[in-house]
Amino acid sequence: MRIARFSIDGNVGFGVLEGDEIDVIKGHPFAEFERSGQKVPLDKVRLLPPVLPNKVVAVGRNYAAHAAELGHDVPDAPFTFFKPSTSVVGPGDPVAYPSFSEEVHHEAELAVVIGRMCREVPRERVKDVILGYTCANDVTARDVQRREKQWARAKGFDTSCPLGPWVETELDPSDLTIQCTVNGEQRQLGRTSEMVRSVEDLIVHITEAMTLLPGDVVLTGTPAGVGPLTVGDEVAVTIEGIGTLTNKVIKRG
Amino acid sequence: MRIARFSIDGNVGFGVLEGDEIDVIKGHPFAEFERSGQKVPLDKVRLLPPVLPNKVVAVGRNYAAHAAELGHDVPDAPFTFFKPSTSVVGPGDPVAYPSFSEEVHHEAELAVVIGRMCREVPRERVKDVILGYTCANDVTARDVQRREKQWARAKGFDTSCPLGPWVETELDPSDLTIQCTVNGEQRQLGRTSEMVRSVEDLIVHITEAMTLLPGDVVLTGTPAGVGPLTVGDEVAVTIEGIGTLTNKVIKRG
Repeated sequence: MRIARFSIDGNVGFGVLEGDEIDVIKGHPFAEFERSGQKVPLDKVRLLPPVLPNKVVAVGRNYAAHAAELGHDVPDAPFTFFKPSTSVVGPGDPVAYPSFSEEVHHEAELAVVIGRMCREVPRERVKDVILGYTCANDVTARDVQRREKQWARAKGFDTSCPLGPWVETELDPSDLTIQCTVNGEQRQLGRTSEMVRSVEDLIVHITEAMTLLPGDVVLTGTPAGVGPLTVGDEVAVTIEGIGTLTNKVIKRG
Repeated sequence: MRIARFSIDGNVGFGVLEGDEIDVIKGHPFAEFERSGQKVPLDKVRLLPPVLPNKVVAVGRNYAAHAAELGHDVPDAPFTFFKPSTSVVGPGDPVAYPSFSEEVHHEAELAVVIGRMCREVPRERVKDVILGYTCANDVTARDVQRREKQWARAKGFDTSCPLGPWVETELDPSDLTIQCTVNGEQRQLGRTSEMVRSVEDLIVHITEAMTLLPGDVVLTGTPAGVGPLTVGDEVAVTIEGIGTLTNKVIKRG
């Protein structure tokens, strides 16, 4: 099932994709829910970020080939960082090039959407806390990342976390193609099977320390091929079984 | 004016401290507000974190003597990191010693409470976006911080961000005594005048990159004297002109 969040005529809602229509959900998808039977055409709505995360927790260097391309080893202990709610934008929303960087990179990532409040999740329960999966772009000011020891500004600036286009709830995340194109040219290509730590590993590791809330998002790392974006570029993240998240890079207004 | 957030008989509200009473606010303090005239005794309420931040943005090594005690220089560019909403607790709430650390440290800090949504704040407008100030303890798993390159787990675990006891709205933050005691013994002592970057510098720097929301909190760094906490300890952060934030360290249940 694919769950989208959308606006139409000033109203915001969740709905289930059925072909080229959305069946509007009564309430929200983080509990048992009913479909209203009221359908809106997909091409009449504006898709929004499929969830509004309170926090996005991301993992560094989770694909060995990407770690190597930036001159790093895979870390012995996975390390994690946050992207704030204010960095999240949806499919089709602009990514605004920040004023304090001259080297903004794309990073295509599989995003895990958390379905329920959870802490200290045992490995065998990880499936139960996941609502589904979507595409993410962990947009990064690479020059700032090099300069500043912690990455709140480099990876947390406004519009640095495109998410979408929707949440796919029935998906085995263990071996999916993940791709990033810029203006239609392929830049990144990998498979989620190349992850150093699996989705299960990451959820166990993160929730050992902190509570995740419904709608929180875990980013699982980026494959090799990261590179610069410039104003005017159209960047697209495509993950097998989910879809494509497209954003245009604009000058920050 | 001191604004507290509290619960009494299952109701949660904001109020203005008047001696040993709280004058309940109609609505919330992030806009023009009225006092209801309804007063509750301070000793009958449970004080809560004075705000519920969407994000806490903290700065590293902002007191030279603290940077030195950990063997570091003051960084050329300030660096920032996040503590998530799920790490926030209030005055009197327990700090739960995490299972994955054996070296949890206190870090007393002046916390700036943001009063309005803001981005790219010019220096001369910084005052306008601040609601006030409170005390914070940037509780840190020092061993994890050394092991993991980014600090989401080391500084973002549940209960690692005590805030309180209330927000003081009329305060010049430029030269205040800041102190941390453990079981009544002094551990940290400094003055906010020792900050490498002032409150204004930090707000300008952070909002160059990201939007701050009403209730978001900026932590301004810790003075020298950080050290370990153990289960059973009572840790207190006192800042001149604000008050004392006290928390007890417990075993994580």
